[in-house]
Amino acid sequence: MSLIVQKYGGTSVGDVVRIQNVATRVAARRAGGDDVVVVVSAMAGETNRLLGLAHALSPDADEREKDVLIATGEQVTVALLAIALNAAGCPAVSFLGHQVRIATDSAFGKARIKSIDASRIGAALAAGKVVVVAGFQGVDGADNITTLGRGGSDTSAVALAAALHAGCEIYTDVEGVFTSDPRLCPNARKLARISYDEMLEIASLGAKVLQIRSVELAKRFGVPLHVRSSFTENEGTRVVEEEASMEDVLVSGVTYDRDEAKITLVHVPDQPGLAARVFGPIADANISVDMIIQNASADGTTDLTFTVPKGDFRRALALVEAHAREVGAAGVRTDADVAKVSIVGLGMRSHAGVAAKMFRTLAEVGINIQMISTSEIKTSVVVDAKYVELAVRVLHAAFLGDADEEPT
Amino acid sequence: MSLIVQKYGGTSVGDVVRIQNVATRVAARRAGGDDVVVVVSAMAGETNRLLGLAHALSPDADEREKDVLIATGEQVTVALLAIALNAAGCPAVSFLGHQVRIATDSAFGKARIKSIDASRIGAALAAGKVVVVAGFQGVDGADNITTLGRGGSDTSAVALAAALHAGCEIYTDVEGVFTSDPRLCPNARKLARISYDEMLEIASLGAKVLQIRSVELAKRFGVPLHVRSSFTENEGTRVVEEEASMEDVLVSGVTYDRDEAKITLVHVPDQPGLAARVFGPIADANISVDMIIQNASADGTTDLTFTVPKGDFRRALALVEAHAREVGAAGVRTDADVAKVSIVGLGMRSHAGVAAKMFRTLAEVGINIQMISTSEIKTSVVVDAKYVELAVRVLHAAFLGDADEEPT
Repeated sequence: MSLIVQKYGGTSVGDVVRIQNVATRVAARRAGGDDVVVVVSAMAGETNRLLGLAHALSPDADEREKDVLIATGEQVTVALLAIALNAAGCPAVSFLGHQVRIATDSAFGKARIKSIDASRIGAALAAGKVVVVAGFQGVDGADNITTLGRGGSDTSAVALAAALHAGCEIYTDVEGVFTSDPRLCPNARKLARISYDEMLEIASLGAKVLQIRSVELAKRFGVPLHVRSSFTENEGTRVVEEEASMEDVLVSGVTYDRDEAKITLVHVPDQPGLAARVFGPIADANISVDMIIQNASADGTTDLTFTVPKGDFRRALALVEAHAREVGAAGVRTDADVAKVSIVGLGMRSHAGVAAKMFRTLAEVGINIQMISTSEIKTSVVVDAKYVELAVRVLHAAFLGDADEEPT
Repeated sequence: MSLIVQKYGGTSVGDVVRIQNVATRVAARRAGGDDVVVVVSAMAGETNRLLGLAHALSPDADEREKDVLIATGEQVTVALLAIALNAAGCPAVSFLGHQVRIATDSAFGKARIKSIDASRIGAALAAGKVVVVAGFQGVDGADNITTLGRGGSDTSAVALAAALHAGCEIYTDVEGVFTSDPRLCPNARKLARISYDEMLEIASLGAKVLQIRSVELAKRFGVPLHVRSSFTENEGTRVVEEEASMEDVLVSGVTYDRDEAKITLVHVPDQPGLAARVFGPIADANISVDMIIQNASADGTTDLTFTVPKGDFRRALALVEAHAREVGAAGVRTDADVAKVSIVGLGMRSHAGVAAKMFRTLAEVGINIQMISTSEIKTSVVVDAKYVELAVRVLHAAFLGDADEEPT
């Protein structure tokens, strides 16, 4: 008998039939002898419906009140799931953020969890009940309702697992974490295991399967995660502490992000404070810059290139053009038709030549690399958007093979 | 500068446009210098939508969880109204039942308020804010969410007014309390003032304008109520302590209730315990009996007649027929096509002949009275359902006149 925290996302509880399916799954686990804490999101579409009401009243709605509003989404789901469990003969009780003191700071809309009082959950478990906890929400020191930001239910689940010293299963609408996007790369395989660090890179490179903060939290508290589908009984992907054998695998995944646009300041005199003067106004406009590359050239000028999300491209360009003359740039070049392709793997730390193999593989099919950025366990390149599928496929074939079985 | 509690019902906050209208009204009152606490219901239809989801999962849903579920309705409205007020430049903050400690017992679905901690509301008012409080909901001693039953927001508003020593305005979709139903009786007039006791009788006789418990609470704590429309600026009806002049008015209102069905046990031997044996099983079946009449006759038998809501008629009849032989009744007679017509007025206490005038008025137009029931300030009769409109009109004309001006 063990204690497990299960988290079900919005799609998995999208209507009453699916809620009933989740209840059946939870009740079976409980009947098997495990203690179960369930964390649920709002029913798919509900958070957006509520935000639509707020937006109709004010495009700039009060942040505290917006949290009061959208916290109802998870409240509805916990009540319905507890009703379904009780009706199925599996005693259950729901708790909201304030009832189990999921204490957060007061950053409405993006609050961070500070502590959880596990005593009430423990008492309910000891009484033989399944405990259903509202994800995404907490309370600050003054008992105001807070929310954790999009995808925050993952973070709620991991924080509860950490507080309860339990494992954590994240149920979603995909089978787990894949070596690449199966829609783009037919040979993509589900990974059986992946390290926290690799998962962090994959999440930050555009994969939607887990919220980055939840992975950080799981790593910090050593919470084992199991990402799996709520629609099948198959094993998913386990996100765990790094294991010795993991470095034997050069690359665990190939990811891509089409949401990139490129801006280059050409022939800028290379002087101290240049980057600050260019990127200060962009940061002030709340635009997040992704990759930045600066090459010093022999004549004392430099080309400064960076990427921003496509949706922020026009605003970013206007800011850059306004400051281009001031920093002495010869001109501004742009390309909104680019994409980023990355390889991620712990093996890069100990094996030389992984990046070189990546560049060679792309060169062999005639793909020109426009920008390069590396970290300890990932290498990203920016290429022309039309080459994304090809790049992902050849890199997957080169590093992960085309066989059906997983390489060791 | 005074402090006022305003309550807006579900129709008044039924969509974002109406919520904006309420915000405009509240902001104007605040701008006029008054401190304002607003209590709101769920948007019209929302509570039923939520109960529909619960019912789809279980026809017999867990009561605690049902309260967690439907409490979200009011939570959505308080957040939206606070957003609308802030957007209109009127600083506002929302509070839920647990945030202002609307402490109740643990009778989920029909909880009773025990106390309210007004300190947080007082602090927000002192900071110049409009305070928006979720109606209908509270918390029990273990921080479980409770709800007060249908129409409970009226009770929330009155309890808050009592705790804050404030007056209370109940905004609804009608102009106030009328001498009769204007749809049935074109000469019905809005009452300027009515006593708590009369309002209680009128509410219990079928008028939907105020929840009975809210009137009881207002009477107990001497909270002056003002029932008025949220769609106009007109004065409504003030429900107040009895005033000396009120007894001069014989009758304040004529009400009716079509939701009655009649069952008679014929020629029952009149022996101790008869009523208990007949009504025990009916009470056990949770059917509420309205009027009961028993006439002893000379031969030692009696006719026992009573009324139940039409929806419970078949169930009640089955129970009565099952016990009719046991109590020695000669037979059972029924009439599901009856209605109750009542007159209400403080004047009945001090003026003889009011009931007699009622019976005479009905006799003059040939309406046969099937049952009679009286209290200190009301007289009710059961008549054939087809005479309801006629009965209401002739009684209104006889006691309240047909003039447009209000009689003194």
